[in-house]
Amino acid sequence: MKALVYHGPGKYAWEDKPKPTLSRSTDAIVKILHTTICGTDLHILKGDVPSVTDGRTLGHEGVGVIVEKGEAVTNFAVGDTVLCSCITSCGRCDYCRRQMYSHCRDGGWILGNRIDGTQAEFVRIPNADTSLYHAPKGVDGQALAMLSDIFPTAFECGVLNGAVKPGDTVAIVGAGPIGLATLITARLYSPSRVFMIDVDDGRVAVSREMGAAVVINSKKENPVDAIMKLTDNVGVDVSVEAVGVPETFDVCQQIVAPGGHVANIGVHGKSGILRLEKLWDRNITITTRLVDTCTTPMLLKAVSAGSINPKHLITHRFKLDEMHKAYETFGNAAREKALKVVLSAE
Amino acid sequence: MKALVYHGPGKYAWEDKPKPTLSRSTDAIVKILHTTICGTDLHILKGDVPSVTDGRTLGHEGVGVIVEKGEAVTNFAVGDTVLCSCITSCGRCDYCRRQMYSHCRDGGWILGNRIDGTQAEFVRIPNADTSLYHAPKGVDGQALAMLSDIFPTAFECGVLNGAVKPGDTVAIVGAGPIGLATLITARLYSPSRVFMIDVDDGRVAVSREMGAAVVINSKKENPVDAIMKLTDNVGVDVSVEAVGVPETFDVCQQIVAPGGHVANIGVHGKSGILRLEKLWDRNITITTRLVDTCTTPMLLKAVSAGSINPKHLITHRFKLDEMHKAYETFGNAAREKALKVVLSAE
Amino acid sequence: MKALVYHGPGKYAWEDKPKPTLSRSTDAIVKILHTTICGTDLHILKGDVPSVTDGRTLGHEGVGVIVEKGEAVTNFAVGDTVLCSCITSCGRCDYCRRQMYSHCRDGGWILGNRIDGTQAEFVRIPNADTSLYHAPKGVDGQALAMLSDIFPTAFECGVLNGAVKPGDTVAIVGAGPIGLATLITARLYSPSRVFMIDVDDGRVAVSREMGAAVVINSKKENPVDAIMKLTDNVGVDVSVEAVGVPETFDVCQQIVAPGGHVANIGVHGKSGILRLEKLWDRNITITTRLVDTCTTPMLLKAVSAGSINPKHLITHRFKLDEMHKAYETFGNAAREKALKVVLSAE
Amino acid sequence: MKALVYHGPGKYAWEDKPKPTLSRSTDAIVKILHTTICGTDLHILKGDVPSVTDGRTLGHEGVGVIVEKGEAVTNFAVGDTVLCSCITSCGRCDYCRRQMYSHCRDGGWILGNRIDGTQAEFVRIPNADTSLYHAPKGVDGQALAMLSDIFPTAFECGVLNGAVKPGDTVAIVGAGPIGLATLITARLYSPSRVFMIDVDDGRVAVSREMGAAVVINSKKENPVDAIMKLTDNVGVDVSVEAVGVPETFDVCQQIVAPGGHVANIGVHGKSGILRLEKLWDRNITITTRLVDTCTTPMLLKAVSAGSINPKHLITHRFKLDEMHKAYETFGNAAREKALKVVLSAE
Repeated sequence: MKALVYHGPGKYAWEDKPKPTLSRSTDAIVKILHTTICGTDLHILKGDVPSVTDGRTLGHEGVGVIVEKGEAVTNFAVGDTVLCSCITSCGRCDYCRRQMYSHCRDGGWILGNRIDGTQAEFVRIPNADTSLYHAPKGVDGQALAMLSDIFPTAFECGVLNGAVKPGDTVAIVGAGPIGLATLITARLYSPSRVFMIDVDDGRVAVSREMGAAVVINSKKENPVDAIMKLTDNVGVDVSVEAVGVPETFDVCQQIVAPGGHVANIGVHGKSGILRLEKLWDRNITITTRLVDTCTTPMLLKAVSAGSINPKHLITHRFKLDEMHKAYETFGNAAREKALKVVLSAE
Repeated sequence: MKALVYHGPGKYAWEDKPKPTLSRSTDAIVKILHTTICGTDLHILKGDVPSVTDGRTLGHEGVGVIVEKGEAVTNFAVGDTVLCSCITSCGRCDYCRRQMYSHCRDGGWILGNRIDGTQAEFVRIPNADTSLYHAPKGVDGQALAMLSDIFPTAFECGVLNGAVKPGDTVAIVGAGPIGLATLITARLYSPSRVFMIDVDDGRVAVSREMGAAVVINSKKENPVDAIMKLTDNVGVDVSVEAVGVPETFDVCQQIVAPGGHVANIGVHGKSGILRLEKLWDRNITITTRLVDTCTTPMLLKAVSAGSINPKHLITHRFKLDEMHKAYETFGNAAREKALKVVLSAE
Repeated sequence: MKALVYHGPGKYAWEDKPKPTLSRSTDAIVKILHTTICGTDLHILKGDVPSVTDGRTLGHEGVGVIVEKGEAVTNFAVGDTVLCSCITSCGRCDYCRRQMYSHCRDGGWILGNRIDGTQAEFVRIPNADTSLYHAPKGVDGQALAMLSDIFPTAFECGVLNGAVKPGDTVAIVGAGPIGLATLITARLYSPSRVFMIDVDDGRVAVSREMGAAVVINSKKENPVDAIMKLTDNVGVDVSVEAVGVPETFDVCQQIVAPGGHVANIGVHGKSGILRLEKLWDRNITITTRLVDTCTTPMLLKAVSAGSINPKHLITHRFKLDEMHKAYETFGNAAREKALKVVLSAE
Repeated sequence: MKALVYHGPGKYAWEDKPKPTLSRSTDAIVKILHTTICGTDLHILKGDVPSVTDGRTLGHEGVGVIVEKGEAVTNFAVGDTVLCSCITSCGRCDYCRRQMYSHCRDGGWILGNRIDGTQAEFVRIPNADTSLYHAPKGVDGQALAMLSDIFPTAFECGVLNGAVKPGDTVAIVGAGPIGLATLITARLYSPSRVFMIDVDDGRVAVSREMGAAVVINSKKENPVDAIMKLTDNVGVDVSVEAVGVPETFDVCQQIVAPGGHVANIGVHGKSGILRLEKLWDRNITITTRLVDTCTTPMLLKAVSAGSINPKHLITHRFKLDEMHKAYETFGNAAREKALKVVLSAE
């Protein structure tokens, strides 16, 4: 079969590779119908993720059909259309029993990282019963692929951890795919106003279309000043970090109102400043989280009901064997005005 | 009457001053029976708290008897023995309606700060109906004085914000009065083990007496290494910062287990480091809070029931007019082996 | 001034009465701009509410302008346009401090019950600071009048107590104004499907317009069977009782899924059956509540943001002195196809 | 091997039976060290539980050693000492993913019910990885056997569902083993006073020893009157039903304070009355629950830490082959002053 294989920093190829086989009775083999590329995949290609080694098939998002399954798999049958969660989980360890699947002792984020991933014609999914989800009837497969990672990440790390409530003011720093998925899923809780902050005029425009009340280009105006002005100098109930650098985290802590939440989604490579001297008496809650995908069932219902439409984030569509072209497009997201790119088998 | 009056950095005196009078119909005048000194008072004396100006009577903790009240005060009668909360609150503003009394628009921490305080023979309490509490029958007045500030602070900022649960492991950095009150009130939720960390051997010993499972002198051993060893390299469910400097906050963020809480109690004067690169995927919650004293009714019940005994923190007792001596003792806490000092009218 | 005065069972008149005056320093006198009639008012007229005595002005909902205020009122000024909450609360008692304003020791539901109410040209509001709300700019006064009672009742007793979450299935038994307000406010949390059950074809039709997924006329089909069929025999996540008789409560307990919530809104006059033999092992939560109106600030934000539009419930508009006609219309709601009737001063 | 086998209403024998064997790769075979008898077992013997058929080995509580395991079992090894949960759960179904193990689609309460149970020399445990727990070092095996059912039942259905908080007043109706385990585990949250109500003077006395503030013999005084008097006519914050008949549930709903919780633990065979006309405006929460045993890890920590001591409930000890004698003793609990009887292999 064909797969997108990493060969060290800067090197990757869509090349032939043996089709995966069952290694444990809890595995399933999934034929990929749709997959997508994550910002994390770009980091891997740069060599930023040392757990990914030469020869690894990338990708942790996908929708497909089960073509083979171990005897211990009972929730699924061959022929079932399934969503592959970016987090595989055993359901048996202490973390899984607490719904912290991200920290599963026999899983977590391993797809396209420690084991071969979904950017291929076939993928082996370990602990299939607790790592796959039935595709709901009537939901578009490409839309569904957005629920492998980006939507649960935005929803769990941003919206739930941020405790968004009806009437709240929310500021999301970063209007990339994750920030926009936060905007979309925050609206499940009917905040009164969502402010989006980004440096890219294209994303600023998209944010407005997707329902942001106000959009701030932080290259053109100071985002802290802008938010404080918009909120009568109170700040926002919830600020969400969706970039992953200390500077944007700092914006978040400066714009949060007393009693408010700072919800970090971004993947960070270095330490930031914590303004303890300003925050100590402001009754603030700061949260971090690797997505647990424990809300995938809820999100599937929300998509089925039409409460959210993940397709709005898909800007480019490719065939699976156009993988290189898809990476080039996604790698030049600003120029290509790309949010999420989807690759489909047919 | 006599009062402890601040006269600029380093200068204070127990001196004559006019007895306070009612200024609003919601005020009460309380004759002080017991008061105490807070670490914050020492900061004020150094000149660290600019809102306190020359001529201010210090003190925000006390128990007394109502000797006069405005006509709008309905919850209390002249002659009632009352606890004065360190936080006065109007009960009418948006923050009070959210139980965030610390941010009350007509109160908050103003006693001994923006208005004259409790280290005096008499004190005026604004918004008396929502800032005083009836002394429960049978509870010792000196014990009760511990509920003005230190116990609700420890309980709300440390225990409740830290979400301590039965079976949890808890580490408290700082075994001063606040840290010890955190230890005592954490036990209301039956954690399995509480670790105390301090630099003072005396406080280390006291912690052990009060039920700490393990006590670490961070001058003698690295507290991060010690805690990780004690928890099989997992870290603690809850770490509580009870000092107020970046270094101890840093210990807290390094010893918290995945899924855990870092609860800040300390008053901070400068920024610290936030180890985003380590915490971003660990599902951590960090909280800050100025005490709201919204749990004072709960704590009064716990004291009445004997579930907690605040008297354990009282090491020195003085008469009210021994104010200077009390300040000297409390100002040399380590040498004097002082935790809380109480001053009583008779 | 004119007021709608109760004179014993079946007797009432829009008649002259002295204009109310301030009796405590915390009172305000409000000139009514808009008021409305509640199902409870009809119960009072039948003599079902013994606390209401001859001579009482009815009404506990209204929007108006402050024309006079006691000296202790600080949140409002003469001339302010305000929403009168059906629940007046002191903000000082133990219940108020727990946000259980419904049980306020110096308030609760007293307007148009133990003291004169809002169906008049003027009304005295006790504890004005904690019983009135500023009308948000740009919100229609008639819409606002829906926030005195019906919207917080539906939202607190039905939606919040029912713990409605994104993706949930919700069944509301009773499609009168309260049931419909529950439908509208439930959607703030994006349930996947809301089922409405009523006996009136007109209300069934209105429910569909307001977004109900399925509407069941329980005269024509068994509602329990219908709901079980619609939910693949699982039942609903949340069932809401919005009628107030044992039979409809019984429907609610029969259609709730394991792990689900039964939220009672209805005012009940007699006991019902609790099917303990079926429910004991189903992990069910049943709640009752008299509205606290503690979510009024949240609802005001939701209305301002356009997240909910209370005007959809207003079917008839009258002048204030058409009170009799308004009562007749509302008293024959089915025939008149009336939901909420509004009476306005001009 | 020997096992306690049910042979229809009133008939049972400690008789020879084939040793269980692995039937699925997720099974484990456990050699029983300690088991106990539950009130439910007595109901089964009466013929009250139709799912139990002739030939079934009874028992759903036990501690033992794994002697054999399927290849898919990864959390445990042969030779491990384990606690058998009364609820077996697959960890893979929708209910398990919500921690509602009681409703597991491949488990729930099946031991000694739909499959052979623990009152035998050996038992087969299905879904072993998610249905067994490692025995903590240093915890007595007999004490541990109390964590199969009675302690998680009391804690989850009574204490957690009742939302017991520090300072609360709690009333427990029924001072049998479940009621006493509720008393013991309620104290993990430091309520101010726990009232126990029973008809048996022996149990009344035991309750007092275990820390009940007040004990009421409901044969000698009206329990509703007694509780209202003890609480200044307010009622209790939490009332717990631990008997399983309509009359005791009725007591619970009559003694709960406004804003309080009624937590049902009892197994009910018939409907009761719900006093809707009194409760509708009292902001009450009523809960039901079949134990999920999702708190077993927490309880194991609490036992290890010495926060609770389940051995206090053990009144009688037998050898495993004294099964008949144990049943006779437990079946005449009042006369024998029996709480929990333990049967041990050696």
